[in-house]
Amino acid sequence: MFINSDRDFAFYLLTILLIFSTQRGCCDAQSFKYETKEFEVPLDHFNFAINTTFKLRYLYNDSYIDKQSGKTPLFFYTGNEGDIESFAQNTGFMWELAKDNRACVVFAEHRYYGKSLPFGNSTFNDSKNYGYLSVEQALEDYALLIADLQQKFNYAPVIAFGGSYGGMLSAWFRMKYPHLVQGALAASAPIRQFNGMTSCDIFAKITTSVFASTYKNRTCSANIKKSWDLFKQMASTDEGKKKLNTEFLFCNPIKTDADLDKFFDYLEDVYGSLAMVNYPYSNDFLSPLPAYPVRQFCSYLQNLQTGDSLFESMKKAINVYFNFTGSASCLDYKSAFDPASIGGDAWEIQTCNQMVMPMCNTPDTMFRVKEWNFKKEAEKCVDKYHIEPKLNDITIRYGGRNLRDTSNIIFSNGLLDPWSGGGVLQTDNPYIYIIIIPEGAHHLDLRSSNDNDPPSVVQARVHESAIIKKWIDDFHW
Amino acid sequence: MFINSDRDFAFYLLTILLIFSTQRGCCDAQSFKYETKEFEVPLDHFNFAINTTFKLRYLYNDSYIDKQSGKTPLFFYTGNEGDIESFAQNTGFMWELAKDNRACVVFAEHRYYGKSLPFGNSTFNDSKNYGYLSVEQALEDYALLIADLQQKFNYAPVIAFGGSYGGMLSAWFRMKYPHLVQGALAASAPIRQFNGMTSCDIFAKITTSVFASTYKNRTCSANIKKSWDLFKQMASTDEGKKKLNTEFLFCNPIKTDADLDKFFDYLEDVYGSLAMVNYPYSNDFLSPLPAYPVRQFCSYLQNLQTGDSLFESMKKAINVYFNFTGSASCLDYKSAFDPASIGGDAWEIQTCNQMVMPMCNTPDTMFRVKEWNFKKEAEKCVDKYHIEPKLNDITIRYGGRNLRDTSNIIFSNGLLDPWSGGGVLQTDNPYIYIIIIPEGAHHLDLRSSNDNDPPSVVQARVHESAIIKKWIDDFHW
Repeated sequence: MFINSDRDFAFYLLTILLIFSTQRGCCDAQSFKYETKEFEVPLDHFNFAINTTFKLRYLYNDSYIDKQSGKTPLFFYTGNEGDIESFAQNTGFMWELAKDNRACVVFAEHRYYGKSLPFGNSTFNDSKNYGYLSVEQALEDYALLIADLQQKFNYAPVIAFGGSYGGMLSAWFRMKYPHLVQGALAASAPIRQFNGMTSCDIFAKITTSVFASTYKNRTCSANIKKSWDLFKQMASTDEGKKKLNTEFLFCNPIKTDADLDKFFDYLEDVYGSLAMVNYPYSNDFLSPLPAYPVRQFCSYLQNLQTGDSLFESMKKAINVYFNFTGSASCLDYKSAFDPASIGGDAWEIQTCNQMVMPMCNTPDTMFRVKEWNFKKEAEKCVDKYHIEPKLNDITIRYGGRNLRDTSNIIFSNGLLDPWSGGGVLQTDNPYIYIIIIPEGAHHLDLRSSNDNDPPSVVQARVHESAIIKKWIDDFHW
Repeated sequence: MFINSDRDFAFYLLTILLIFSTQRGCCDAQSFKYETKEFEVPLDHFNFAINTTFKLRYLYNDSYIDKQSGKTPLFFYTGNEGDIESFAQNTGFMWELAKDNRACVVFAEHRYYGKSLPFGNSTFNDSKNYGYLSVEQALEDYALLIADLQQKFNYAPVIAFGGSYGGMLSAWFRMKYPHLVQGALAASAPIRQFNGMTSCDIFAKITTSVFASTYKNRTCSANIKKSWDLFKQMASTDEGKKKLNTEFLFCNPIKTDADLDKFFDYLEDVYGSLAMVNYPYSNDFLSPLPAYPVRQFCSYLQNLQTGDSLFESMKKAINVYFNFTGSASCLDYKSAFDPASIGGDAWEIQTCNQMVMPMCNTPDTMFRVKEWNFKKEAEKCVDKYHIEPKLNDITIRYGGRNLRDTSNIIFSNGLLDPWSGGGVLQTDNPYIYIIIIPEGAHHLDLRSSNDNDPPSVVQARVHESAIIKKWIDDFHW
């Protein structure tokens, strides 16, 4: 019954990315300064019979540049699915590098996000309006903005930066516009999380492994796996249901199987999110969290447990996410991860047009078993957005596993990050740089340096910095 | 008065390309065989809210392939501005190579040309319909067709071929889809004939040089240059006008200055065309022509002449183009190079959206002096097609002079070809191959081997064949 949930795993995991990216982190709390600017771009870069334009927002800081120098690099963040200001505040490493390299800094907002809405408040009112939301249109926005800045200020070379979907964009940008972008740092960019390239259960497997390996005997993930049946059993009696509703402080009490299913979806979101933000210092991306939140979560589940004991421990563990500070009033499992609550349908539309990333849970993971069913996903997209997803679109456009004919891209991945499974972890192309961060979660390297950073991320940044410096040194017009 | 003709030099020169490409050549008369197939493609590859599709025509021949082999190359012609069958019949070298390499052969038709009309007979009735005509849409058509053929038949590697605009497409295809295309032969592809990259008078200069150097003392081009004033003077009197009309067998007699201007446009078209098809054997692309038609033309102009003598000589010379066989009934200067008479507005629309190739004539050429005036061109495009041309579009998308980060493209250019000036004639990228054919006109190398071929084109084909063989040998999945 719960296995074939109506809610789509692929969507909610990607939604996490969105939430993750749009919230501000505690630990990049130093507020980076910039001017907020606008750049007029064609609504449709591929249709010359349409003259409509709209304003793309970007953030600009030229305070580090050396005006006497003949070479001023431009560090360009290829904005992803969220408000661009949050990326600017949470990508401290790029600011550190810009200072070192006396670069101009630009964070460009992705169309359909933040304040860069082509149709203003009506952007998501009509399926016709969605038609101009795609990777290709976004990359053309960035290309025009760079060409304009270069024409005015002669900035060069340009280095692209991005994390997560933004990392994909920075990699694809270098692939398609190498004449504009000298190199790209693509952090935690799962460009291989597409049909036929990566097993669909890789996210679930890595998440399970992170939870399992936190304490000995893999008790944490084993307990989580058992908890589904426990909760289900409790929800099958009035008494159990009452206990669930009371103890978990649900904003909306569980009444039906569908409610329980939503709660389970919420829990799966929580586990994926905890793995992604399993950072070495406390942060409040999703909710206030301690350092290494998975360890904190699992600390309550160090022994195999059953029944009431398992329930009590799970409750404490889930509180790490839901109510670490003790100030939460109720647990809103229905909308905590709802895209609508965090600013629009844009990402869900992208997963319905070309960003089709197959996701499933196999029995050897701690998640509920769930198959990948493209047909069903496609039907949902047609119902909701009148868009037919194209399963192989990204692979045909960007080349899938074949990275032979590109260069100057750094793919960095933290092994604690569930998205690393879809990342680029090996290559025989000497101009593609693979950086593995064993102690890193989701694009930890892009964040500001922190005293609590593990050695592997410190080393990764040193390596990344050296490569980027070399790109700059090697550049000539 | 004539200098600022209403007729646009850029357009008519490009129109020549079209005519050139859509007529069948006498000397590739062996008829190559193929199946005619159709492939359904999205009308808009960049807008997922539009589900409309149409059928792209392509020609297919798998008769050369070795079914026992583990590696079957696909030779893929990236169709340009014309009916794809004419390209198939006039690209004999690709068939020769396919036989040698046991390759499958595909000629794909460019959308909006030939039978690949997205809106059938209404394609050019409404400016909204033009919106899906662009380089990017065409390349995506080709990418999907290749992906489909590969999925069905496992063809690999893919080598792209093209001449003229088709050569630009094959080069850009390799640049943007290197994961699909192992290499490209881009013959006479003026990818640098865009704003800021090449002097706008280069076409006129090379044409002048070809006419000037055919006989000693540069008399041929000098006489042509003088002929403008002569004709103008004749047209200023009733008697002179009558002589012009009678002697030239005009279908529509010259009555006004505008008529005379149209005749001058026609002559400039003729001169450019003669230089392009200045082949070592007789051909009937544009009209039946002798071998080396420029030499034949100039044979009448070996001495500097004036007055009646110049008129008589020019008449004989022009007859080389207009009436070599003596069977033409009248000279139709008004529509001989009219795009409408040769199948639609598609190329003119492309020059009005992104294919903006600046053209001008300077006083040191044999042409009438003409400035490049983008503003005026743009106004004409808006008037006629409601499209605002984008002057730098191609450069931003495809990189202009910067070819550092691409590979496996052969750029071949004949030095007798006026388009060679906008071609790639040098590079410091060791994976870009420059082949110069001193005795070659417009993509002579792509045509079938011929006993009259000059040594430089024979050598060019040997070189091209070796490079392509190496790409095939080096390829592995």
